[in-house]
Amino acid sequence: MDPALVASADRSQVKSIKLESVEVEVEEDSSEDILGLETDESYRLSIVVEESPNDPFQVDEKHCEQMPNYPSPLGAKGIIRAKSLYGALHGMETFSQLVTNNPQDGTKEIPHTPVLTRDRPLFQHRGLLLDSSKDYLSMASLYRTIDVMAMNKLNVLHWHVAGLQSFPIALDDQPGASTKSSKVAQGDDQSDAQPVIKRGLPLSQLASKGVYSRGMVYTKNDISELLDYAMNRGIRVIPEIDMPGDAWSWSCAFPEITVCLGGYPSYSRFSAEPPSGQLNPVVSKTYKVVQGVYDQVQPLFQDEYFHGGADEVNANCWNNTESVLQYTKSKDIPRTNEGFDRILDRFISRQHEMLRHGNRKPLMNHNLGTLRQNKDTAIQVWTSSQNIKKTIQKGYKAIAGSADYGCLDCGLGDWLGNWILGNSWCDPYKSWQKIYSFNPVSGLNPEEAKSVLGGEALLWSEQVDDTNLDAKLWPRASAAADVLWSGNSDDSKTRLWNGPDQKENSLRSNVALERIDEHRFRMLSEKINAESLQPLWCVRKPGH
Amino acid sequence: MDPALVASADRSQVKSIKLESVEVEVEEDSSEDILGLETDESYRLSIVVEESPNDPFQVDEKHCEQMPNYPSPLGAKGIIRAKSLYGALHGMETFSQLVTNNPQDGTKEIPHTPVLTRDRPLFQHRGLLLDSSKDYLSMASLYRTIDVMAMNKLNVLHWHVAGLQSFPIALDDQPGASTKSSKVAQGDDQSDAQPVIKRGLPLSQLASKGVYSRGMVYTKNDISELLDYAMNRGIRVIPEIDMPGDAWSWSCAFPEITVCLGGYPSYSRFSAEPPSGQLNPVVSKTYKVVQGVYDQVQPLFQDEYFHGGADEVNANCWNNTESVLQYTKSKDIPRTNEGFDRILDRFISRQHEMLRHGNRKPLMNHNLGTLRQNKDTAIQVWTSSQNIKKTIQKGYKAIAGSADYGCLDCGLGDWLGNWILGNSWCDPYKSWQKIYSFNPVSGLNPEEAKSVLGGEALLWSEQVDDTNLDAKLWPRASAAADVLWSGNSDDSKTRLWNGPDQKENSLRSNVALERIDEHRFRMLSEKINAESLQPLWCVRKPGH
Repeated sequence: MDPALVASADRSQVKSIKLESVEVEVEEDSSEDILGLETDESYRLSIVVEESPNDPFQVDEKHCEQMPNYPSPLGAKGIIRAKSLYGALHGMETFSQLVTNNPQDGTKEIPHTPVLTRDRPLFQHRGLLLDSSKDYLSMASLYRTIDVMAMNKLNVLHWHVAGLQSFPIALDDQPGASTKSSKVAQGDDQSDAQPVIKRGLPLSQLASKGVYSRGMVYTKNDISELLDYAMNRGIRVIPEIDMPGDAWSWSCAFPEITVCLGGYPSYSRFSAEPPSGQLNPVVSKTYKVVQGVYDQVQPLFQDEYFHGGADEVNANCWNNTESVLQYTKSKDIPRTNEGFDRILDRFISRQHEMLRHGNRKPLMNHNLGTLRQNKDTAIQVWTSSQNIKKTIQKGYKAIAGSADYGCLDCGLGDWLGNWILGNSWCDPYKSWQKIYSFNPVSGLNPEEAKSVLGGEALLWSEQVDDTNLDAKLWPRASAAADVLWSGNSDDSKTRLWNGPDQKENSLRSNVALERIDEHRFRMLSEKINAESLQPLWCVRKPGH
Repeated sequence: MDPALVASADRSQVKSIKLESVEVEVEEDSSEDILGLETDESYRLSIVVEESPNDPFQVDEKHCEQMPNYPSPLGAKGIIRAKSLYGALHGMETFSQLVTNNPQDGTKEIPHTPVLTRDRPLFQHRGLLLDSSKDYLSMASLYRTIDVMAMNKLNVLHWHVAGLQSFPIALDDQPGASTKSSKVAQGDDQSDAQPVIKRGLPLSQLASKGVYSRGMVYTKNDISELLDYAMNRGIRVIPEIDMPGDAWSWSCAFPEITVCLGGYPSYSRFSAEPPSGQLNPVVSKTYKVVQGVYDQVQPLFQDEYFHGGADEVNANCWNNTESVLQYTKSKDIPRTNEGFDRILDRFISRQHEMLRHGNRKPLMNHNLGTLRQNKDTAIQVWTSSQNIKKTIQKGYKAIAGSADYGCLDCGLGDWLGNWILGNSWCDPYKSWQKIYSFNPVSGLNPEEAKSVLGGEALLWSEQVDDTNLDAKLWPRASAAADVLWSGNSDDSKTRLWNGPDQKENSLRSNVALERIDEHRFRMLSEKINAESLQPLWCVRKPGH
C-alpha cells in the first residue's frame, strides 16, 4: 500500500494534497473503555484541507496578468475523535473505507473532501451468531470472522459453542476435594439426596467424548486468546451453551443426567432435529454438572451477558420420562403444556441463578409458551419478528435476530437424508435484500423501541463448516450490519426498492446495492470469500 | 501417502496382504483413444489375492497339533483393463476411491476384497456447464474444476465462454489482405453488397472492449493449455459462444452488427436479463464477424461438437429494429412469432453451416418455438425436463441438462437490484437430493431413450465467481455425476427416499446420502471446498 494518502475534492481542478496525518483522540475517562452494551461507540471523523493564509492575488508569470489566487492548500489532516477506544476503532474503519485507489496513477486517495461525519450506531447490540456445535469451526475461521465483523462494525459474536451435537470446550475434571455443591446446585429429588457430594465430576469427558474428532475442541487457552483478539477489535463474545433441550452432546459424558437419547428412527417425537437428548430437570446431578461447567466457562468469557440457550425444549420428551413423571406426580403438576412450562421455568430459574451468581446477566432464546423469568433476562427473538413486540410487552429487553429476516442458512433444502422435496425450516433463502429490509423496531412505539437492544444475523451450522463459512456469511451479514448500524433508510426514504409501483423508491433503487457491492470488494481485498451477488457487469453499471 | 497398500477382507481374521502392483492394460486399437462422444469409457477392475499352493495342513508348533492350513496368501494384485486410455483413467479413479485409511495404524487399505468390477457409464455425455461470461472465472478455477470433474467421472466441460455480458477470448485482428468472405458469410442485405470485402476485422476488440477488466481474458494459449490438461483427464471441452441473443458483449467492438443495446430502465422488453443486445440478422457484416470469430476459435477447440448458443433470443427486439423490419417487409415475412422464427432459423442455419464447414457438429439450446434445424444438431434441453421427449420426437439427439433438476444457481434470490421479494428464475434451490432424483430418460420408451446423449449440471454465473465456485458446484454436481454414470437406483430400487409412505425405500434411505457424503470428504482431502450437506454428527451416524 502506497503510504501517500491523497485528499482531493475534484481531480480536474484541485491539485492532489498530501494527507499529512490522521489524529485519533479518545476521551480520557477510561470507564468508557469497558466493552459492553453501554459502550459509547460514537465517533467524529473529519478530513479537512488546511489552506495557506497567502495574499489572495499573485502574478501569473506566463500570461503576465494578475489572477485571483485561490487559497493555496498546504496539506490535509484527518481527525478522529471518540469517547471510547471502540468508537475510535469504528472511526478508523470508516476512514479506511473512504480511501480508494486513484485509477490514473494507482495512488490512494479520498475523492470527496472535506469529510465531516458524526456517526453512532442505531443499536448497541449488533451481533452475528456462529454455531460450532452442529459442525466444528476452526480457530482460523473464528479469527477471520472476527476481522470481518470489525470491518462491518458488528460488535457481538454470539457463539453458539456447545449444545446439540457436540460439546467442543475442553474443560478440566472437577477434583473431588475441592468440590462444593453450591446452594443452587442442590437437587430436590429424593433418590440422590446426600447433603454434600465429595466426588468430583469428570467434566473433561464432555469434550473428549462429546465431539466429532480429537482436535475438534477449543481449549481454554484457545478461547482466551480469541476473546482478547475480539476485544481488541471492539467485539464482545457472548457464549451460548444450550440447555436443557438440544443437549445430546452431554450424554456421552453424563448419560445419567440426560434423557430421550438418540430416538431412532423417530427422533422427531423428542427433539427438533437429531439426535434427541435433553437434560433431566429433576435429578440433582444435572444441576451439579451445569454448575461445574459454569464454574469453568464463566471465567473464560468476560461479557456481562451469558446465553443460557433454552432452545427447542421438547415437552413430549419429559412427559415420557419416568423420573420426571414421578416428580410431577409428587408435586401435583399436571401432564400438560402448562405443567411442562412449570418444570422448564424451574430449570431455567435455577440455571439463571447460577449465571447471576457468577455475575452474569442471562440471555435466553425465545421459543417458550410462557416467559416468566426475571426481567433482567434478555430474550433472543430468533423466531418470527412478530414476537419482538410480544416479548417487549412482557417487560423484557429483546435482541431481534429473527429467522424470517436474518437467518443465513434458510432455503437450501433439507439436510436430514435423501428426501427429494425436503424444505428447510425457514424457507425461502434470505437474500441480502430481504435482510436489508429488516427494521427491528417496526411496529413499536418509541418507548417500546428502547427495549430492543439490537439484532443479529444467524448462521447455524447444519450445512456450514470451514468450506463455505465466508460465502454463507458475507456479504449478506453486511446487510444486517448496515441496518443495525444505520438503519435501512436515509431521511425516512428507504434505500431499497419495494416494488414497481413505488416510483420514488425506484429512483433510489440502488442505494443499498451499491453500499453492499462496494463493501464486498473491500472484503475480497482482505481475502475474504464474500460471494458474488450479481454479474460484474451490473456492479460496474449501477442502475442498469 | 503411505506407499504400502493393504488389501484385507476382514481385519479380525485375515492378515494384511501387501498389494504388490496394479496393472493397467489398455487395448491396442488406438482409435478408441480419440476422446469424443463415442469413446468407450468402460473398464474392469479386479483386486485379487494370490494364494499359495502349499500343503493344506501344517504343524502348529505352539500347540503341537496338526491344524488345517488355510491357504496362505502370497500377495494381492490389482488389474485394470480398459478399451481406451479414458476407461483406464476411470478405473484408476475407482481404484483410488476403494483405498481408505486403516484407522488403527494409519496405513492405506482396501477393506473389502476381492474386488471384481465391470463398470461403464449409463450416458456418454456427462457434462458440467460453467459460465465465464456473466462473471470471470480464473484459469486456476477452471483447472481445479477439471480435476474435480475427473474425480467425479464427468467428461464434458460445457464452457459458456462468451455471450451476454463479456467476451473474454483474446482474438487476433483479422488482417485485410488475407480476408476472404466465404460463401456462408455473404449477406443478402442490399445496402452492404460489395462482392468481396478486403478490409480486415478488429476482432481483438471483442475482448479488449468487451470484458470487465484487463486481465479478465483468456488467451489462445490459455485455452490450448487448458484443453490439453482436460483431455489428459478424459474431459472434452465444448465451447459455447452465445448468439444471436444475449450478445451485448459484441457491441463494444462491433456496434454496427448489434441492436437493442442496453435498454434502460426497461431492458426486459428486449432481453431476459440486462444488458439487452442481439446480433442483427439482416446485416452481412454480422455473418462476417461470426465467421471471423469461428475461424479463430474453432481450431482452438478440438471437440466434434461446438455449441452455438441460440439462447433467449428476443422477438420484440428484432420486431422493433428498422433494418429487420425492412428486410421482413421485402421478403413478405409477417411480423408475428412465426415470422420471427423464420428469421431466427435463417440465422441459425447460416451459423451452423459455418460450424459444419469447420467440421463441427452444432449443438444449440432448446428454447425455441420451432426446431427446424438439420437433424445432426444436438439440442441442449436446459429448460424443463418435459421438453426432452418433445425434442427427441422431433428427431433430435438431446442433452438433458434440465434446470428443474440440475441448475445449481437456483433459489438464491434476485440479483438484479434491491427488490426484497425477488425470486430466482428457477426457484426453489436444487438440493442434492433433487438433483439425484433426475432420470434423463424418464417417460421415454427404449428407442427414444437412445437419443438422450446424457445430461449436464448447470452453473451460470450471475451470482458465482472464484469466491464461491467450489461450494456452489460440489458436492451437488457429484449427485448429477453419479446419476449420469450409474443412474439413481440399484436393481430398480431407488437410492433415494421419496416419502414416508414408501416403506421399502425408507429402508434404503441413506444409500445415496452415504455415497455423496463420502465423496465430499474425498474432495475435501484434495482441498476442494465442497460444501457441507449436514452436521458431521449425521455423517458419522448414517441412518439416524
